Amino acid sequence: MAQTINVDLKRERTKTKFNVEELTNILDNGKENTAKRREMESSILSDKNLKDEIPEEYLSHKEKYENAIRKAVLLYRKMESYASQALSLQESQEFNFRNSIASAIFKEGSPLMLHFGMFIPAIQGQGTEEQIKKWLKRAINMEIIGTYAQTELGHGTFIRGLETTATYDAEKEEFVLNSPTLTAYKWWPGGLAHTANHCVVMAQLYTKGKNCGIQAFLVQIRDEETHMPLPGVKLGEIGAKFNFNTVNNGFLGFENHRIPRDRMLMKSAQVLKDGTFKASSNPKLVYGTMVYVRVIIVNTASSYLARAATIALRYSALRRQSKLKANEPEIQVLDYLTQQHKLFIAVATSYAYFFSARWVWRLYKKVTMDMQQGQVDRLPELHVLACSLKVLSSADCSSLIERCRLACGGHGYTLASDLPQLYALCSAICTYEGENTVLLLQVARSLVKAWEQAHKGATLSPSMAYLSDRSPVSAWDSSVDGIIRSFQKVSVGKLSEAVRSLKENSQKMSPEDAWNMTSVQLIAAAEAHARAVVLSIFKMEVENSMFAASAELRGVMTSLLELYVVYWALEKTGDLLLFAKLSEADVRALQRRYERLLTEVRPNAVGLVDAYDFRDEVLNSALGAYDGNAYERLMAEAMKSPLNQEPVNQTFHKYLKPFMRGKL
Amino acid sequence: MAQTINVDLKRERTKTKFNVEELTNILDNGKENTAKRREMESSILSDKNLKDEIPEEYLSHKEKYENAIRKAVLLYRKMESYASQALSLQESQEFNFRNSIASAIFKEGSPLMLHFGMFIPAIQGQGTEEQIKKWLKRAINMEIIGTYAQTELGHGTFIRGLETTATYDAEKEEFVLNSPTLTAYKWWPGGLAHTANHCVVMAQLYTKGKNCGIQAFLVQIRDEETHMPLPGVKLGEIGAKFNFNTVNNGFLGFENHRIPRDRMLMKSAQVLKDGTFKASSNPKLVYGTMVYVRVIIVNTASSYLARAATIALRYSALRRQSKLKANEPEIQVLDYLTQQHKLFIAVATSYAYFFSARWVWRLYKKVTMDMQQGQVDRLPELHVLACSLKVLSSADCSSLIERCRLACGGHGYTLASDLPQLYALCSAICTYEGENTVLLLQVARSLVKAWEQAHKGATLSPSMAYLSDRSPVSAWDSSVDGIIRSFQKVSVGKLSEAVRSLKENSQKMSPEDAWNMTSVQLIAAAEAHARAVVLSIFKMEVENSMFAASAELRGVMTSLLELYVVYWALEKTGDLLLFAKLSEADVRALQRRYERLLTEVRPNAVGLVDAYDFRDEVLNSALGAYDGNAYERLMAEAMKSPLNQEPVNQTFHKYLKPFMRGKL
Repeated sequence: MAQTINVDLKRERTKTKFNVEELTNILDNGKENTAKRREMESSILSDKNLKDEIPEEYLSHKEKYENAIRKAVLLYRKMESYASQALSLQESQEFNFRNSIASAIFKEGSPLMLHFGMFIPAIQGQGTEEQIKKWLKRAINMEIIGTYAQTELGHGTFIRGLETTATYDAEKEEFVLNSPTLTAYKWWPGGLAHTANHCVVMAQLYTKGKNCGIQAFLVQIRDEETHMPLPGVKLGEIGAKFNFNTVNNGFLGFENHRIPRDRMLMKSAQVLKDGTFKASSNPKLVYGTMVYVRVIIVNTASSYLARAATIALRYSALRRQSKLKANEPEIQVLDYLTQQHKLFIAVATSYAYFFSARWVWRLYKKVTMDMQQGQVDRLPELHVLACSLKVLSSADCSSLIERCRLACGGHGYTLASDLPQLYALCSAICTYEGENTVLLLQVARSLVKAWEQAHKGATLSPSMAYLSDRSPVSAWDSSVDGIIRSFQKVSVGKLSEAVRSLKENSQKMSPEDAWNMTSVQLIAAAEAHARAVVLSIFKMEVENSMFAASAELRGVMTSLLELYVVYWALEKTGDLLLFAKLSEADVRALQRRYERLLTEVRPNAVGLVDAYDFRDEVLNSALGAYDGNAYERLMAEAMKSPLNQEPVNQTFHKYLKPFMRGKL
Repeated sequence: MAQTINVDLKRERTKTKFNVEELTNILDNGKENTAKRREMESSILSDKNLKDEIPEEYLSHKEKYENAIRKAVLLYRKMESYASQALSLQESQEFNFRNSIASAIFKEGSPLMLHFGMFIPAIQGQGTEEQIKKWLKRAINMEIIGTYAQTELGHGTFIRGLETTATYDAEKEEFVLNSPTLTAYKWWPGGLAHTANHCVVMAQLYTKGKNCGIQAFLVQIRDEETHMPLPGVKLGEIGAKFNFNTVNNGFLGFENHRIPRDRMLMKSAQVLKDGTFKASSNPKLVYGTMVYVRVIIVNTASSYLARAATIALRYSALRRQSKLKANEPEIQVLDYLTQQHKLFIAVATSYAYFFSARWVWRLYKKVTMDMQQGQVDRLPELHVLACSLKVLSSADCSSLIERCRLACGGHGYTLASDLPQLYALCSAICTYEGENTVLLLQVARSLVKAWEQAHKGATLSPSMAYLSDRSPVSAWDSSVDGIIRSFQKVSVGKLSEAVRSLKENSQKMSPEDAWNMTSVQLIAAAEAHARAVVLSIFKMEVENSMFAASAELRGVMTSLLELYVVYWALEKTGDLLLFAKLSEADVRALQRRYERLLTEVRPNAVGLVDAYDFRDEVLNSALGAYDGNAYERLMAEAMKSPLNQEPVNQTFHKYLKPFMRGKL
């Protein structure tokens, strides 16, 4: 492998008009964090045992899992030393916004992911003090491995429809768990198949003959000594998937499986010894965890896209293809305006969601603090914001990752590019943790409510305040602020249309049918709101985060923001023509401005992705490595294929030769 | 496995308002063809040896290839008996439009695909009579296995940039093949890695010290006896991909590899013994094969989408989720308007491209016949049409497959749904056989030329004739024909804008730079043209093919067409507001009409996909099987995973237990 940097990529870096390290430090929230992150990445990722001799894509499904377990255990021990530096949970979460170590080690996810991501948080969030004392330490010390089982074969986002039952037996002071049907089987939880021996199970509680809704139970599912499934517990894996094949997603069925009463997580609702049910005092609190997960997800989506953009940008800088002028050499693909059109919006969007994630995280922290003092006013708004951002970030980032992949032509189709994997990882977000359409309908429900409240003169929450201003637009304003305000007008217009349709439909049918019949418009209104929100946040956050930055960097980020805003204006000309007094001449001007902005971003494009500072192990891409030796790396990756370890495959003798001789 | 049909699906089928078999027969071009197809499918697919005991997704990369070779050889022998029924190549191609047998057997493609798809056609199309006599029979009899090597590591769509050289040595009357650089390595050809022993190689011809452009050479690459790569030939596979992992895509490098002079395929260009080069008389003829492949591709894309739509529709009919009304049972997901919005356009689009493929195939046959009589006038038009349809069908079908996949929620993520595989297969079309953006720019080039010719009063080819009518639109016409005409106006408007920008830019820079600087607009104009073309073809073909159909079927297909047209009008309100006098009130009316059309199509939705008549083996989907027992099938598929063959995986003893005991 050539150790030199590809000349085209090198030249791009000299052309960059801003200090890349300055931007990296801003992304890390300070120089010290950059240093700390780099030190940790370099220390852990230099461990050869965490690398795969044969890339996982060549292994069988079973071998992949076994290799992932080997690495998961090793990684945990490595990370322990860093945990001792004792960051608070929030600090370490913030730090983890920029930590991609796990994805450098697990291309398809870790089988212990849900132990940390959901099992431990579920105990913390839903356990009593006594339960936390008993279970949390064992979980944190990895004496037990857990997961979290909610989704069933027959039920996903509609949680009230879950079928698993936990029936209280007051005589024995036990719950009896059952999966009354095939569709009641828990389905999907990571680590559930062969890894975890404990599990938080969401089930319909029955006590004294009455259904008391969905409650959480801490259930041992495998013997700690032998790892055999306990009696009455049926376990297995759900089979191969688009990605996440090393996460060990499993199924779980119960047949009269008994657990003691103290295994119901009773922080809010309780079942007393005699079977009396005490409901939760504040059901709104249940929002908390969901919001938390969705906030994290926005960051995850933006990080996947940032990786895809890094790969596609670097490759487009080093790939030369076709001559623009007969007597000149082939040009860098990145010099084609169509390629810039494909990729720069991907870069801009990765930043838009990076900043949105950080913004909503700060809001989450504030609202959580308020809640601890008994104030829950802003929780509903936060819920709507988290839903909106989760939906839009997952949808935008996955479609743009795919755009990046396709922009790399055939080579984007090879797993060695890592682009197919990034797409499969990111597009999963569209359906997990609340299916996007269902979430948009929840956003729409809040918007319709806010619309009516505003009509009655009520003050709306800050992120919806613009819905109160129903003054008509006077003229098209092409400034960045003006365009963002126009997007708010679009949101108002679409919501107003949807509400009008809803009312019309309500005259002809039941409210539920009217809601359904209007739902395509409601979703469009929710999307328009979410779009307006993201545009505002990006603007705000570029200004805030660039406040102390150098003029050069501020200039570059301002161009990127403008490109983002103008791109969306051109995508939504229909809406802007209808609701924001856009004219034909304005469309033409936007188009020219967009083309100018592409040219403006062009010299800094590689710098903008370099600033993400992804190590080659994280990118895991022959096309996107820092040195730009894409072709050498593609060949080197190909040579790792077990098929390439022998010149003639055995099937020649067994099948092809007799076949060609007419003997088969 | 329950042998009964899911009750919801059963009811859907009783509700269907048309005769499904009637539509199937129309798709097959007649009852007899339906019978013939079914007989062939049932005979071949009933062979147990062609089925996989363990689904391929659980095998290692190498095992997958070996299993595919086993099946490829077997399938060939099975198919031979049908080949003896002696259809002409065109007849069998037409018949194959509805034949999905291979995709029932190879989830990721056959390693012999390019032998039939490109090696044999290349010999037929580019060989002299003598060469055909010598090689074609051997190839057809499978005495040799071939492939077709054009793309290189460093060059794809820009064929003139290929680096492989074939230098004529007049003394020995041989060509000397070389790969002067790493990027010159042939990269991608199916079967090249370990399967083929012959290959048609595209290389830069040098004779008498001069470059004579790209020519085709028939090269033996492996020994027929031992299958070892011949001296001077470097072979291997290119590694794991998004899909097509059993196609055995390979690389090929040459180091002074010599072949006799008669291995250059000399139908058009020739090299005489003394090294004199004789150029081809009609270089336009080279269009022929490319057009052929692209025409076939339109059908392939529509068929992938038809499969995805079948799976998602059936699953949405059997899946019940969430209550619309508190006291009623959970409803079929298909009853949500948002779900109809996601899926019905997928159904309509699969039909649109099915009919477009058939239409352009007829045109192809006609133009080919004309060509045999020396008329090549319509070839450029056909080229533009094939490019337009290839681009739009691949882009639309892949994004709609993904929409179908996401509409199935989490279960759409499992490989047992077959939806991820369909997406990976279909989206590959966007970059192979001419990258979509490059093709759109070719279309744009023709449009700009046509625009200027029309300006000078020339008559344009039929599919571009509308570009001559530049009269302003008088009023919005909401009939289907009116909307289609409006889309032509959009195309005229966008092209006119692009030409204007091109001229403006040409004042400021070189023509090449101006072209590049305008390319985003040019691509938009090309897309608008392609969109107008597809809308017209779909309309025309629904009318033609339903001419003799029952009133019920005609009604259903007319609704589907209308839904398609109105959907696109709503997608493109921006363009229609600018170029077709659409008003705000019209947009509102279109939206209402669209919602009404969804309701209209609803009762026939399952019938419309049932009519495609895909066997369960072809669908290969737990979610989409005819009987609708999706949950039982998901579980049955999961149980095939090798990880599920033992209750405790060995990694528990090796890693997890010592880890949990703190000993690792």
